[in-house]
Amino acid sequence: MTTQSPVPMTIYGDSISGNCHKVKFVADYLGIPYLWIETSVLQKETRTPEFLALNPAGQVPLVAFPDGRVLAQSNAIMLHLAEGSALIPAEPFARAQMFQWLFWEQYSHETAVAVLRFRKAFLKLPECEIDPALWPRCTAVLALMENHLVQRRYFVDETLSLADIALLAYTRLAPEAGLALPPEIARWVKRIEVDLKITAQP
Amino acid sequence: MTTQSPVPMTIYGDSISGNCHKVKFVADYLGIPYLWIETSVLQKETRTPEFLALNPAGQVPLVAFPDGRVLAQSNAIMLHLAEGSALIPAEPFARAQMFQWLFWEQYSHETAVAVLRFRKAFLKLPECEIDPALWPRCTAVLALMENHLVQRRYFVDETLSLADIALLAYTRLAPEAGLALPPEIARWVKRIEVDLKITAQP
Repeated sequence: MTTQSPVPMTIYGDSISGNCHKVKFVADYLGIPYLWIETSVLQKETRTPEFLALNPAGQVPLVAFPDGRVLAQSNAIMLHLAEGSALIPAEPFARAQMFQWLFWEQYSHETAVAVLRFRKAFLKLPECEIDPALWPRCTAVLALMENHLVQRRYFVDETLSLADIALLAYTRLAPEAGLALPPEIARWVKRIEVDLKITAQP
Repeated sequence: MTTQSPVPMTIYGDSISGNCHKVKFVADYLGIPYLWIETSVLQKETRTPEFLALNPAGQVPLVAFPDGRVLAQSNAIMLHLAEGSALIPAEPFARAQMFQWLFWEQYSHETAVAVLRFRKAFLKLPECEIDPALWPRCTAVLALMENHLVQRRYFVDETLSLADIALLAYTRLAPEAGLALPPEIARWVKRIEVDLKITAQP
């Protein structure tokens, strides 16, 4: 989907959300034009009747295409935008491994690292009000990534794929949750940020 | 991947896990032979050194192919097994909608319905020890599905896809969590169970 329409797609996104960054990273990398409509989760802008009519799940990111079709779920949007590009491995088992990381990210990583970051950095909850089980879960998630990256430059097949972009989104923000990045992960974050030409917070 | 090898793949699965059922449903539907190795989460069989060597994430389902390659994450396994079959829509936007449901299921549905079921039916926790936030989350998840199914027979494009199979796995078990199935969902569960030739608990 790299053909360009005169009317760009619209991304409803929250600039503090790593899930929304994923969509921005892929669109920017592939040169797909878009209109970004800032939609704040904290200010409940994803819970208005207008937004719920677009996405009954009340979640960002959401993409509205010029023909009126809408698509939710960060990883589903990335997959759709990147279709036919090198960000999706052509070889079936490499593609399966990419999917494995995409689902692991949403199920095990996002629900630990992103949740801890949100509670600390945005809800600004005191330590005693944060579920203590979140810390070992975050540590385990980062340890699994660190082990995988030993002697690897990318998550799948030594080439940039959606697996790296999905995992990058919240991993690079983990320090905001008070989590230190282990050395292999820190090097990988810099590598992918260079690949994606990310210079600062999106 | 519907070609059959003389040595079948191995599914490490827990018979009480809806995520593991997904893989079984797809393999059975597509006639892909497999050896099932019962691997109990409750008995910590996913935490042994042997299992962690296969899947560092310590999760089932896990599939080991005859050539030694392994693949984790229920939805990634389903996608790999169903590659080239009608369970994955050929039309790009329908496929994107299927992905939307797969990621929504793992992020929003499984983390509510499956968690409540596990705590009630398997950990047998008393009501007072179950996070009260789980109930409204389950209700919201089922309401969203019910609304989507009004005037629809399947989740995507009026034909059976992996979206239905992924959503079926824990939705059909929701009564074990004390959740009543709304009417459209109840009819859809029966429809997909007939399509998949599921007669009882797998």
